[in-house]
Amino acid sequence: MYVLYYSPGTASMAVHQTLLELGAPHELRKVDFDTNAQKSAEYLRLNPNGMVPTLVVDGAPHYECAALLLLLAERHPEAALAPAPGTPQRATFLQWVVHFANTLQPAYRQWFYPQDFAPTEHEKESKEFARRRIEAVWDRLDAHLAAHGPHILGEQLSIADLYATMLMRWSRNMPKPATAWPALAALAQRVKARPSWQRLYEIEGLTEWA
Amino acid sequence: MYVLYYSPGTASMAVHQTLLELGAPHELRKVDFDTNAQKSAEYLRLNPNGMVPTLVVDGAPHYECAALLLLLAERHPEAALAPAPGTPQRATFLQWVVHFANTLQPAYRQWFYPQDFAPTEHEKESKEFARRRIEAVWDRLDAHLAAHGPHILGEQLSIADLYATMLMRWSRNMPKPATAWPALAALAQRVKARPSWQRLYEIEGLTEWA
Repeated sequence: MYVLYYSPGTASMAVHQTLLELGAPHELRKVDFDTNAQKSAEYLRLNPNGMVPTLVVDGAPHYECAALLLLLAERHPEAALAPAPGTPQRATFLQWVVHFANTLQPAYRQWFYPQDFAPTEHEKESKEFARRRIEAVWDRLDAHLAAHGPHILGEQLSIADLYATMLMRWSRNMPKPATAWPALAALAQRVKARPSWQRLYEIEGLTEWA
Repeated sequence: MYVLYYSPGTASMAVHQTLLELGAPHELRKVDFDTNAQKSAEYLRLNPNGMVPTLVVDGAPHYECAALLLLLAERHPEAALAPAPGTPQRATFLQWVVHFANTLQPAYRQWFYPQDFAPTEHEKESKEFARRRIEAVWDRLDAHLAAHGPHILGEQLSIADLYATMLMRWSRNMPKPATAWPALAALAQRVKARPSWQRLYEIEGLTEWA
């Protein structure tokens, strides 16, 4: 039994969708961002970063979306949401998962939480730099998918696709959303057509970008 | 046979040390940052990000330091540089590796390449925000090591320690270097005492923070 601390539409989303894809028994605990519950003493004992997701695994809390996706995929190999260690696709798989964690996630933080990156009077320019870095990743991922798609690993769906789609969704109100890139739009369509995505929307109460 | 594209003391360093720890046959190719060779058309074909490391595995180039560390550890399980999938330490291991990739690496980019994060006239303030984010990670990692050390996974050395030590080294000229935190300094001492670290210094021609 897993316990997922989540907030609708945030970085917990891909972990939630993965649990649904796996059919893994789990309990959900909503962290109320409206009351800043992610910064409460109680929550900080679970996750000192004050962010979601936190996933309780075998009784112990863990964080970092990409790490939890890698962990869930390897704990449930029968679902084949990751290429097995030693297979030819493994290096490409790890590369993209880490690349998203290393580039898109921090750039989105700069876009959505500019106060952590620059003084208030510089926030507008700071966000512009974040936008450029995000779009540079879409350029590279779109080229990869155009050459090797339709999924990040070709025919095989993996957690890298669920992760990418969550990250694409966050760009929906940006000047150039990810879906402006054709191969990215096609990948998003595939992931959004899955029952797990539709179930996730119902449970989390999401409406935008359905 | 692996081929590692590297530059001394950069993000290729932990991958290089891991190859030495593993005793894995490899060939080194130095990317000359003085002539901006990492942005040459030839190199960009290997790594479209124009960064190091790039590791050629089974004939195909791959990037992202953390992904390459995870890959090398799982390709050489006999060296036990990572807890095996399914073991209790696995979640903690993945969490820290991704956390470094997601927090320290991008914050260092903001510190060392401020031009990618803010307009020139705001660079000084921008770097200050990067410094705060880096120090917040040292606070959390020091607390973790004080409670669960001496390595990130307790008694077991892993690639997470080699990765952390490379990242600590980058702070050596910052206002508050990582070694100002006692448990971090103790971890760095352990990693620096290894023959692989000394061999790496000889091969890469490094002198500072020996």
